[in-house]
Amino acid sequence: MTAATWLAIAQDSPFGVHNLPYGVFSTADRPGRRIGVRIGEFVLDAGAAARAAGAPSVLLDADTLNPLLAAGRPTWAEVRAGLTAWLTDEAYRSALGPLLVPLADAVLHLPFEVADYVDFYSSEHHAVNVGRIFRPGAEPLTPNWKHLPIGYHGRAGTVVVSGTPVVRPHGQRKAPADAAPGFGPTRRLDIEAEVGFVVGTPSALGTPVPLDGFREHVFGVCLVNDWSARDIQAWEYVPLGPFLGKSFATSVSPWVVPLEALEHARVAPPARDTEPLPYLDDRAGDPWGLDIALEIRLNGHPVSHPPFATMYWTAAQQLAQMTANGASLRTGDLYASGTVSGPDPQTRGSLIELTWNGEEPLKLPDGTTRAYLENDDEVTITATAPGPDGTRIGFGEVTGRILP
Amino acid sequence: MTAATWLAIAQDSPFGVHNLPYGVFSTADRPGRRIGVRIGEFVLDAGAAARAAGAPSVLLDADTLNPLLAAGRPTWAEVRAGLTAWLTDEAYRSALGPLLVPLADAVLHLPFEVADYVDFYSSEHHAVNVGRIFRPGAEPLTPNWKHLPIGYHGRAGTVVVSGTPVVRPHGQRKAPADAAPGFGPTRRLDIEAEVGFVVGTPSALGTPVPLDGFREHVFGVCLVNDWSARDIQAWEYVPLGPFLGKSFATSVSPWVVPLEALEHARVAPPARDTEPLPYLDDRAGDPWGLDIALEIRLNGHPVSHPPFATMYWTAAQQLAQMTANGASLRTGDLYASGTVSGPDPQTRGSLIELTWNGEEPLKLPDGTTRAYLENDDEVTITATAPGPDGTRIGFGEVTGRILP
Repeated sequence: MTAATWLAIAQDSPFGVHNLPYGVFSTADRPGRRIGVRIGEFVLDAGAAARAAGAPSVLLDADTLNPLLAAGRPTWAEVRAGLTAWLTDEAYRSALGPLLVPLADAVLHLPFEVADYVDFYSSEHHAVNVGRIFRPGAEPLTPNWKHLPIGYHGRAGTVVVSGTPVVRPHGQRKAPADAAPGFGPTRRLDIEAEVGFVVGTPSALGTPVPLDGFREHVFGVCLVNDWSARDIQAWEYVPLGPFLGKSFATSVSPWVVPLEALEHARVAPPARDTEPLPYLDDRAGDPWGLDIALEIRLNGHPVSHPPFATMYWTAAQQLAQMTANGASLRTGDLYASGTVSGPDPQTRGSLIELTWNGEEPLKLPDGTTRAYLENDDEVTITATAPGPDGTRIGFGEVTGRILP
Repeated sequence: MTAATWLAIAQDSPFGVHNLPYGVFSTADRPGRRIGVRIGEFVLDAGAAARAAGAPSVLLDADTLNPLLAAGRPTWAEVRAGLTAWLTDEAYRSALGPLLVPLADAVLHLPFEVADYVDFYSSEHHAVNVGRIFRPGAEPLTPNWKHLPIGYHGRAGTVVVSGTPVVRPHGQRKAPADAAPGFGPTRRLDIEAEVGFVVGTPSALGTPVPLDGFREHVFGVCLVNDWSARDIQAWEYVPLGPFLGKSFATSVSPWVVPLEALEHARVAPPARDTEPLPYLDDRAGDPWGLDIALEIRLNGHPVSHPPFATMYWTAAQQLAQMTANGASLRTGDLYASGTVSGPDPQTRGSLIELTWNGEEPLKLPDGTTRAYLENDDEVTITATAPGPDGTRIGFGEVTGRILP
């Protein structure tokens, strides 16, 4: 049975006390950034709450989550237990009530300083779709795909918080019929709906993190929109991978859902048809499939429902892969799952798949169609997952509007 | 005529007052990190020197170069003018003499906090060699190569200072004859001799930096060894580029040579045979070819002399490319040139080229041969460039020893 809060929030709120995601906020009357915890349609000023409760507040009195992220799993559990107690025990009502800010009054900021950003490519359905579109006639999956979670580094400095406008990027693009590339605004601006994992506890250079180190190192989960300019990407990506087709912006949701809140969302990963090498073999342990249901809305209209539970590689396997060569982790490292696409057409996580590279445009309720994004289009990705006792865990949203 | 210093240093020192590279050091008796400027075989404690000279010291009283990097070109010029004055005017001898630490007593640290790390691929000779080795039978250069400087993001968190040992990474590798990949220590551990550019002044998201913004944004230059595990790289890099084959370690030299010190090293870039798009066209302006002569030593034995002046794309073009899509720059961004290889076999910047993928092993003076690096091997890259009045500018060295 989940505890009830003394706060008036909807019974079925995906932001009940079973969730308690962390973010960074400010208000018009107090522009300094501070850590907030979302409860219902409110943001609790976490540092002030700790002080009011007479608890240690130093990790919560910060302008980013990084000090809390760095503190490690036992401290994360302690802080979460404190927040849960304060929000469920009537005795704290009078002290904490004044520290609740209506969500509408909070400006939400990038919740943590991003150290390195890695993007994976772990949906088999997505990889097959993109392989068919980009490399027609060839095997859609490269020979390595079932043996390792393929990934690459992205640009940490252009990770932005939900709500940040996305300026349509310029770049070189060359259609097969063109003799030489031209330069100008992308004509194929796309989205990629992904789930992001935020590293808290760092690791030492030269020491891989095994599968069962996932829980010790990863603090929580956010939503990611990995904006992609498909024409720029297609021209640049051979032989060294995506670069300017991705690096202009990556949007993340303002709330980081703690891993503890996702215990009830754990599911078995899909069956794999290739024998994994031992460092990626999660069959004997406790694998980290997660039943997160995403929704993509384009100008308010739902266009896809990608199911994260269908991902071939889990976030624990991705972490083991990322460190298998001894690469160290830093507090604030962010790694994203790769586009989440399910088996059905209406569960695909990118427009290139949903419109089959523009050949089958989406029809929107306003009568217009979309192959790729137009200026002033707004894309919003939301998600929920199962919580305890039939509750839902909300992830908030990652949204962005395209500027010319 | 370059000014003479009151300090006793060799007339032909590549670390005379015409150079003055910045680093971060500590000493056994004072373990706190502080900014140092190299002069001859000494390190000047820069913050203490500023205080002794009665100059503003706040940017030099830091444990990384980042505050100085962020201050911008006019401040960089002012600080350099101050250092030059203090080291050439006899009046400062008594005050500054005690602030000089013999180089042998200084522990040198990573000089700046790396924000994003990007690696380019801008030597035509290198790209042709690697294309021939990795994609035999195909055109060695991909169709995009002459139209844009190809690059990708690397792992900023594993950039380490010269002298840091490099643990031989494990990973998946699969020979063409193998049915499935195996996992274990790389059998093809390689180096890449590169030149790195350190960004000082940040730029705004959505605003490209044009060619002539190079001098405003780039603070200085260091040496880079982009260690590479060729077998891991070959198996993983299609379709999203290098990842674990590179991310285990990237070594940089401890000294950042200010761009001002390289005015006499500027040369015309090589002739290009493809019309550049306007944003990359440096023919009308003042192109940034740099006559930096590199040397690679393996266990003390010189094995190659890569000439940076032969690079097809300049660092100014790389900066324009990296930001053409509106990607922002942060203080501490590091971008590397890509392996520097000249036209002659003995000027190649990697072992995969020098030994033609191991087919033509190097013979070392101790009678042993090398296809790739063995445990306990030590690789050192050094470089010099022309300075004023026949002097040389030294870059110090980037060195690393392989551990099992």
